[in-house]
Amino acid sequence: MHVDGTHFQTIWLKDDDTVQVIDQRKLPFYFEIKSLNNVSDVYYSISEMVVRGAPLIGVTASFGIYLAALENRHNARWFNAIEEAGNYLKSSRPTAINLSFAVNQQLEKIKCASNSEEAIHVAKEVALKLSEMEVENCKNIGKHGLPLIKEIAEKKNKEPVNILTHCNAGWLACIDYGTATSPIYMGHDKGINIHVWVDETRPRNQGARLTAWELSQHGVPHTVIPDNTGGLLMQRGMVDMVIIGSDRTAANGDVANKIGTYLKALAAWDNNVPFYVALPLSSIDMRIKNGVKDIPIEQRNKDEIKYVEGFLEKSIQQVRIVPENSQVINYGFDVTPAKYVTRLITDKGICKPDNKEIKNLFNYDKK
Amino acid sequence: MHVDGTHFQTIWLKDDDTVQVIDQRKLPFYFEIKSLNNVSDVYYSISEMVVRGAPLIGVTASFGIYLAALENRHNARWFNAIEEAGNYLKSSRPTAINLSFAVNQQLEKIKCASNSEEAIHVAKEVALKLSEMEVENCKNIGKHGLPLIKEIAEKKNKEPVNILTHCNAGWLACIDYGTATSPIYMGHDKGINIHVWVDETRPRNQGARLTAWELSQHGVPHTVIPDNTGGLLMQRGMVDMVIIGSDRTAANGDVANKIGTYLKALAAWDNNVPFYVALPLSSIDMRIKNGVKDIPIEQRNKDEIKYVEGFLEKSIQQVRIVPENSQVINYGFDVTPAKYVTRLITDKGICKPDNKEIKNLFNYDKK
Repeated sequence: MHVDGTHFQTIWLKDDDTVQVIDQRKLPFYFEIKSLNNVSDVYYSISEMVVRGAPLIGVTASFGIYLAALENRHNARWFNAIEEAGNYLKSSRPTAINLSFAVNQQLEKIKCASNSEEAIHVAKEVALKLSEMEVENCKNIGKHGLPLIKEIAEKKNKEPVNILTHCNAGWLACIDYGTATSPIYMGHDKGINIHVWVDETRPRNQGARLTAWELSQHGVPHTVIPDNTGGLLMQRGMVDMVIIGSDRTAANGDVANKIGTYLKALAAWDNNVPFYVALPLSSIDMRIKNGVKDIPIEQRNKDEIKYVEGFLEKSIQQVRIVPENSQVINYGFDVTPAKYVTRLITDKGICKPDNKEIKNLFNYDKK
Repeated sequence: MHVDGTHFQTIWLKDDDTVQVIDQRKLPFYFEIKSLNNVSDVYYSISEMVVRGAPLIGVTASFGIYLAALENRHNARWFNAIEEAGNYLKSSRPTAINLSFAVNQQLEKIKCASNSEEAIHVAKEVALKLSEMEVENCKNIGKHGLPLIKEIAEKKNKEPVNILTHCNAGWLACIDYGTATSPIYMGHDKGINIHVWVDETRPRNQGARLTAWELSQHGVPHTVIPDNTGGLLMQRGMVDMVIIGSDRTAANGDVANKIGTYLKALAAWDNNVPFYVALPLSSIDMRIKNGVKDIPIEQRNKDEIKYVEGFLEKSIQQVRIVPENSQVINYGFDVTPAKYVTRLITDKGICKPDNKEIKNLFNYDKK
């Protein structure tokens, strides 16, 4: 999407031997591009969250394997070295499912290469293809979601369509377009009058920092609100629809997403506001039958609760907001029961959040 | 309640000519006592939120009138001067209903004084009595709420009773005990094993800063959580009851309270967690028939959304968390429909949040 008028993706190849990414830790205060020249750089960029978001982590790791292949051009035991690099990269953020998927995908293809030059060629192709596929998935989510926005826009005449979103399910988490934001960008680019309510999304404030920055760079009107505010807005008819992303969705349609999503789903339900979840089919985990019961919820670093990071006197600083001797706890996600989800918007189409309709989409994929 | 082992109230008279208060802007980072020596000091302390919370604002203003009487001991036109001071104080936070109530109550009594010395005497009595009455109200809320906690404690054996609260409806907002916290302190002091989930309460973080500090000073086990977390905790059976305060409650039982309260009420309802509102009867506004429709919602300073205040390198600092060119909006309150409220806990007893039962409590008051 656009940054200061220029089209950007979150990751790209430069001069065939350098991977470049946007340093997301610095947003929205600085827009800095970081060059990753070797496997260690890639490891650091994932573990330190220079890049974040499941699809982007996967693509970054895939490019990491390409850099590993380049590094081992003159190594007789090139495959073992690349495999080692793969294990190293997998440990950079162990819970990210896309990470091990991307590494394994690379290793499987490289295994068939007859020499290190061919391995380099294959790794580059695989990384570029994965990146393109992620872009394509997001674009398709946008295409399938767009009619839902159009329908509301027609009813509202020229009034803005007010869409609430939580956390960052934007292009920064992906390669381009995003998941929840894809229909929004598409609608905006087609001239639909859209206004986005952006939940700030404590504790890490990905809404206030990343989603707001994305939307503002692309020129989409938006307003940042505390996570506490969405209920009041819905009560007052100030929200036409909710679109959020998902970290993992179960076979029964229960949706795991950033902590706080469930509260917005309840408010949407109480006020008859449609609640949509935008996600690639690859985020649906058919092995998990009951999301509320069986999706494990990660606990994260307590400092994210005790401190808030922001901009002060030309640098990024953290202030403590909790008494020194108070306990805190930091759950990363919650699970929204399927009954509060209006529809899933996937790259393969829209479906009800129930086992039968989800299975149909997967079958469609096989046709 | 206790601060570092010593009993404190939020306001008191020293040497008969100085009013002392806890500077709440500095909590939890510094515990500082501020002396108010004249009407200007009182005006400043209310407008700059050295003191906050409806009952405390009222009592502070009442003491302000006492200081005005002292200042005008030798003024021939003492009553006019005090009346002027009253109008000045009323303008310090125009929306606070307790403020004008307290000033008017003082002026009505002082009007009958035959000279400035008598006025001083009367003003002192009125201020002290108002303060005592607020303490008494809170104590009674505690007495009526305590059996609700006890009942759960008995079922849980020695396991802690987990109580979730939002914002600060604690003794810092009142003179002592607090409203929502009153049954909690009473239960804790009687040896019931209580643990409190403290919503941090963005944007001003009164939960993280004030409620957590209060509880930690008084030794009540507690954990600070982002406002996003309560839903997950309730889903997992980790919350036994919710107790919150109220800024204004309508005749139909709809409850206006700090923004975000409504979302917790929905989660409580969805998970069969009892949701209690603790408030003095004086916070019920019988003129308002329908709370959701008719309670006006104040918008506050946008900087509260853009910036977060906290502690950094030995001083209180504010960091910006939102992109410079993003819009923000800051609604102070939301309204929880009566159907999501289990019971009101008032100084006169417990009742269902409906017109008939509320009226009965008021009638009881007249007997």
